[in-house]
Amino acid sequence: MAADASKSKRPGEFQLIETYFAPLATHKGAYGLVDDAALLGVRARRDLVLTVDTVVCGVHYLASDPPSAVAKKALRVNLSDLAAKGAEPVGYLLSLALCDDWTEEWLRGFALGLKDDQHRYGISLLGGDTTHTPGPTTVSITAFGTVPAGKMVPRQGARAGDAIFVTGAIGDAALGLLLHSERGFSAAGRIGEAARAHLTGRYLFPDPRLGFGQILRRYANAAMDISDGLAGDLAKMCRASGTDAAVEAALVPLSEPARALIEADPALLERALTGGDDYELLVAVPERRADRFAARMAEAGLPATRIGTMSRGHGQVTIRDSAGDAMSFAHVSYEHF
Amino acid sequence: MAADASKSKRPGEFQLIETYFAPLATHKGAYGLVDDAALLGVRARRDLVLTVDTVVCGVHYLASDPPSAVAKKALRVNLSDLAAKGAEPVGYLLSLALCDDWTEEWLRGFALGLKDDQHRYGISLLGGDTTHTPGPTTVSITAFGTVPAGKMVPRQGARAGDAIFVTGAIGDAALGLLLHSERGFSAAGRIGEAARAHLTGRYLFPDPRLGFGQILRRYANAAMDISDGLAGDLAKMCRASGTDAAVEAALVPLSEPARALIEADPALLERALTGGDDYELLVAVPERRADRFAARMAEAGLPATRIGTMSRGHGQVTIRDSAGDAMSFAHVSYEHF
Repeated sequence: MAADASKSKRPGEFQLIETYFAPLATHKGAYGLVDDAALLGVRARRDLVLTVDTVVCGVHYLASDPPSAVAKKALRVNLSDLAAKGAEPVGYLLSLALCDDWTEEWLRGFALGLKDDQHRYGISLLGGDTTHTPGPTTVSITAFGTVPAGKMVPRQGARAGDAIFVTGAIGDAALGLLLHSERGFSAAGRIGEAARAHLTGRYLFPDPRLGFGQILRRYANAAMDISDGLAGDLAKMCRASGTDAAVEAALVPLSEPARALIEADPALLERALTGGDDYELLVAVPERRADRFAARMAEAGLPATRIGTMSRGHGQVTIRDSAGDAMSFAHVSYEHF
Repeated sequence: MAADASKSKRPGEFQLIETYFAPLATHKGAYGLVDDAALLGVRARRDLVLTVDTVVCGVHYLASDPPSAVAKKALRVNLSDLAAKGAEPVGYLLSLALCDDWTEEWLRGFALGLKDDQHRYGISLLGGDTTHTPGPTTVSITAFGTVPAGKMVPRQGARAGDAIFVTGAIGDAALGLLLHSERGFSAAGRIGEAARAHLTGRYLFPDPRLGFGQILRRYANAAMDISDGLAGDLAKMCRASGTDAAVEAALVPLSEPARALIEADPALLERALTGGDDYELLVAVPERRADRFAARMAEAGLPATRIGTMSRGHGQVTIRDSAGDAMSFAHVSYEHF
């Protein structure tokens, strides 16, 4: 197609790949991005774990978000899936559909974000595809990791009697999104700047819980990352496993800033329990191994908190408040769809 | 997010995956799509070949195209990349961003197209991601294949002196797109309905040249699929390999319908040589093995035609017409970008 004159100062696809993405293709199987395909050798007695997630401007991130944050989030939501499967990350493919008014500055920031995280997580860009779209910029990342053969931690392995754990703290990102997109909401003024920055950072920069694969593979019957909210994602694990779950809200770990916000406006507890983007791990562990699992996670530097128990069932999740009453939610899960 | 009342009759993400996509996830590592990640075991002494391609409505296909054709094309452009690498396909991940006015009818057709091609090519859906977009529907497919370890056929392996081959016929799809999108162009009336259907079919339904991997791996120094036009893609192979290419236009294989159209309007030859979507193989073969390669391809049922020769260089492609003059083109390559 003929080039649009107004865009003539922007690089073409070839130059764009060469300038911004080829330097990220450090894996030899990426062939410096000159090929249409990438090569990945998998060591004997390892399985490959694959996952893909797409983020769309205006749906999963805001057009005003820093491009490096967009890049990191797009990558990390995939690494979080690998983490939950007990896998070690290797690399990723990037499919980037750029909106009509993309700028080189945006792209430079985006590539820097990727570069930064490649160092952080020890991974490489393996290949990809760049196109344009008349719609919003759309970033699709396929990430690859490996596990010892047969040892991927499934979602559907939970059993009646299993202890239900979550790592870290729940709800920070959902409250952070609220602060990030609607700064004026009433409870926001009740917490300090550092607390606000903590919550917003948890929304913008999820921290995939990599590095705990060995513990997960050893102790977990089932695991998944919490991307669409604790209540909804736990229901998914239960449906997949053929279990119900009983959770005590008072046991759900909250950060200090989240706790302060919820004290100021108790209705925000629902947001914390059902909002998306936590990227913590949700883990079902056989009762008799629960204490050892918690001890091992604490030693490894990521506290895991027991919040409830699985029973035989069909995907029902009951969260009880401190009075013992079952809570009901307007929206059980954050729906990107 | 709250559901939009006007869409309330459409299934949610979970139901949509269960109805349309879970039946396609026949590979056991897909876990029936209940997990966020898929598992892929790779046999000893095999490498994995990865490729991703994204198609955007209004850019890579027309909104009026049948949804099964959209699905097949999105899948086949990826299988074509695997074919050119000498790989055997295994499966794919699908990332689908649906526009606001998607319908179940469209989705049903789309899933049927995938199902059909899964049977045809012996592959499985391994996993994916479904989201919505305020922009055009965007289909991103990551395909996986395997080759004997170390045997992937690279793009950048061409050497000075290599014979340049193409498979099948060149230009059908570019002329087919013209017929498909601008039925009124003048030469169109000069060919019959069957010829028009042949060309349009070649545009809508690319035929990935799978099944010739063993021959490619044995004879080719370099290979790629022709997706953006012969002239432009050959230039890419040359740039990657550090060669120039000399091609005789009269040697480029044309189908009968393409030949008839070009006879009616000789300017269409440029379109055939530079237009996209051929999905034939472009192969560089050492001179001394060129005849055997051609013989083996003919025996295997896919004629390969020698169109020129590589020389030392920097990516220059010269295509000479029957008078021996170098042709020049307004657009060397079909740019989806």
